[in-house]
Amino acid sequence: MIYNDSDTIVAPATATGGALCLIRISGGQAIAIVDDIFCGKQPLSLVGSHRAVYGNIVENGRVIDDVVVTIFKAPHTYTGEDIVEISAHGSRYIINRIISAITSRGARMAEAGEFTRRAFLAGRLDLSQAEAVADIIASESQASHAIASTQMRGGYSDELKAMRHELVNLCSLLELELDFSEEDVEFADRSQLNSLVKALSNKVDSLRQSFALGNVLKEGVTVAIVGAPNVGKSTLLNRLAGEERAMVSDIAGTTRDTIEVVTNIDGVIFRFIDTAGLHATDDRLEQMGIERTREAISKARIILVMREAFTTDSDATLLDFSPNEQQRVYHVINKIDLCNNYQAETTDDTLLYISAKSGIGIEELKERLTEGLDLAAAYRGDTIVSSQRHYQALTQASESLQATLSAIKRDTSADLLSEEIRQVMHHIGTITGEISSDDILHNIFSKFCIGK
Amino acid sequence: MIYNDSDTIVAPATATGGALCLIRISGGQAIAIVDDIFCGKQPLSLVGSHRAVYGNIVENGRVIDDVVVTIFKAPHTYTGEDIVEISAHGSRYIINRIISAITSRGARMAEAGEFTRRAFLAGRLDLSQAEAVADIIASESQASHAIASTQMRGGYSDELKAMRHELVNLCSLLELELDFSEEDVEFADRSQLNSLVKALSNKVDSLRQSFALGNVLKEGVTVAIVGAPNVGKSTLLNRLAGEERAMVSDIAGTTRDTIEVVTNIDGVIFRFIDTAGLHATDDRLEQMGIERTREAISKARIILVMREAFTTDSDATLLDFSPNEQQRVYHVINKIDLCNNYQAETTDDTLLYISAKSGIGIEELKERLTEGLDLAAAYRGDTIVSSQRHYQALTQASESLQATLSAIKRDTSADLLSEEIRQVMHHIGTITGEISSDDILHNIFSKFCIGK
Repeated sequence: MIYNDSDTIVAPATATGGALCLIRISGGQAIAIVDDIFCGKQPLSLVGSHRAVYGNIVENGRVIDDVVVTIFKAPHTYTGEDIVEISAHGSRYIINRIISAITSRGARMAEAGEFTRRAFLAGRLDLSQAEAVADIIASESQASHAIASTQMRGGYSDELKAMRHELVNLCSLLELELDFSEEDVEFADRSQLNSLVKALSNKVDSLRQSFALGNVLKEGVTVAIVGAPNVGKSTLLNRLAGEERAMVSDIAGTTRDTIEVVTNIDGVIFRFIDTAGLHATDDRLEQMGIERTREAISKARIILVMREAFTTDSDATLLDFSPNEQQRVYHVINKIDLCNNYQAETTDDTLLYISAKSGIGIEELKERLTEGLDLAAAYRGDTIVSSQRHYQALTQASESLQATLSAIKRDTSADLLSEEIRQVMHHIGTITGEISSDDILHNIFSKFCIGK
Repeated sequence: MIYNDSDTIVAPATATGGALCLIRISGGQAIAIVDDIFCGKQPLSLVGSHRAVYGNIVENGRVIDDVVVTIFKAPHTYTGEDIVEISAHGSRYIINRIISAITSRGARMAEAGEFTRRAFLAGRLDLSQAEAVADIIASESQASHAIASTQMRGGYSDELKAMRHELVNLCSLLELELDFSEEDVEFADRSQLNSLVKALSNKVDSLRQSFALGNVLKEGVTVAIVGAPNVGKSTLLNRLAGEERAMVSDIAGTTRDTIEVVTNIDGVIFRFIDTAGLHATDDRLEQMGIERTREAISKARIILVMREAFTTDSDATLLDFSPNEQQRVYHVINKIDLCNNYQAETTDDTLLYISAKSGIGIEELKERLTEGLDLAAAYRGDTIVSSQRHYQALTQASESLQATLSAIKRDTSADLLSEEIRQVMHHIGTITGEISSDDILHNIFSKFCIGK
């Protein structure tokens, strides 16, 4: 994939299928190209920046559509280049006709994320902010939106950038020492260096710790519901989905009999996986069901083991699974409405008494599900890492920071010390984009949608 | 359904799922409401018409998104009212948040087609033009787009309106005669009336005739492919779909085994229905297959009866169907590439020799399919009726026009004559919207998409 960043690019910026569709053109030829097919009161070249004008898109003497064209002139635009936006009727035929009229005049179709790539290259966004744009578009819950918003408005990259710049300065001083190595001078104050590296290390570690929360809030919390047939798993699922239901999908095919319901509880996306009912069997098909349930459990962050109130044993013990340290297991006792004078007395806080049918205990169950998720942190704008890429870079930076600290302690020579610090600077720089390569950029922007 | 046309209304104007989404607000409070949640360099009340400004949408101190807001001030807008367009990131979460912020400030969600309904009520479009807006958005082929375009740019409604106004004048004169009925005067020139009614009648009839073409170009041409198993029906289907394929859908459920492929040939949408192979049987399932094939044939405008070149009989005769006068039947002889020295010599132009596999004869087949469709008429902007509603109104107008002509011939009294003419005026008026009722408007606009 070779991008030519001087091309004029075009793409639909909205999905088709609505009343209108927005087509976006960016680049040096944007205004001239659209002017060539636009027929309005005045040519677009005479229209001021940030102005919308009404007219027709005409090709070969035939009107394709009547549109509103908005002109945004460089440099105060998203990409830093001239941008033209065409608001046309949302017919796929019209959109195709307009875009092909534009590409036949020298623009090319934009690659995924290419508008935002240009915004980054023009210095209008740093890399972490650019990545947040994709997260903003994909956000489906209040929590994931809050994290992406904070990141897009600067988030931790401002702080990281400031610290990195201090490191860069100290590193230059260290390297200056090399030029005077025979004179044994210290331009770079080691105690200043030590406290900067420590501060950065603390910052990096707290960001790394935020990833557990950030990842969950971004991707959603997977909850497996397991238990014998007819203990009320599906009833619970419907109860939890309730009116808050975001989306229901029956995943067909290999995972047949496993139903996933995505729903929003208190601004967080939860993915409930309703597994096949389990019971002791030698039957091959049933064995396959158990296998699928095991898979669901391995993917889950929370496991709800359900049984009925009036039975004592649970067939779920058939599974004999041991949760890992990131997983939480709750034992959910259902159908307590069928038990006369049922008194839920327990000090075991992994034990929950509910009636999925009547709704008893459901609110408490929901509270347990969001337990440990520090939503307030997300909403008050704390910096929370939600990107796998950033987490990896932070982990590598953390290792290099530890190595730097011990190098300072050992009073290592300036050249070895500067080598360690360069590693730190590199890893931090990949987050903000001060260090980037075409490969990194391609990996990031190719995951964007077309038109952004 | 009661519309309050003075409400400020809001709706997403584009589909969600893209990089951006456009939200549209129209009405007297549009600017004030958005201003209340907008945070930019200056308040929106100070922004001029047709200007785009960048800023944040903020609610309860929390930034929902950074957006571009474009202001369009009455009266030079689509609806004739103040319109605000918000271009936000295309996350469903963000769109919902912004729209609920707007509705909580006194706007309400727009009904389907309500923006265009307001454009009509404000006199910015007549009814036939408003209906064309929906057709434009739905257009999937060059032909359907051309017809809708012509209609939106005035089309036949201008001509009908002019003729109707002449009728209105003559009708007033006729009714003036009633006031002087005892004096036996003729204010309305009967020969002038006669020639106007004749001209209108000719116009109406030619429009009615255009409906056969218009309906087909708008809805697409349905083609049933019938024949014994393995004569190559599916191969032909794939060949016809080829690279021009627009959309493939397997219609599941009741019509299982019947596959519909929608494709674009020379700018016209064709719906090919591949039916189950037919052969003589008493089997109940097979009988059901024949039943489904019969259904497909009854819906089709063109029927391709396929058989292999090296057989002589066709099991399709099992069907024993007789096409109606609007249907065309072609006998398609397939696999001619398997016959040595095959010479297609025939004067029967309903007989076609092809090889679906190698492509022989396919171009000729395509030509036959578009035969009788006067595409040139659509592309040169001829007025073509494609709306079922207009066709019905024209048919009723035509009947009333015939009654009027014979009334003139019989020298009927002014009151009876004026009654006939009022009928004509009514039917013509429903097309342009000069006559409309809330029911008519609701029927028309409720078929629109939301946001238009």
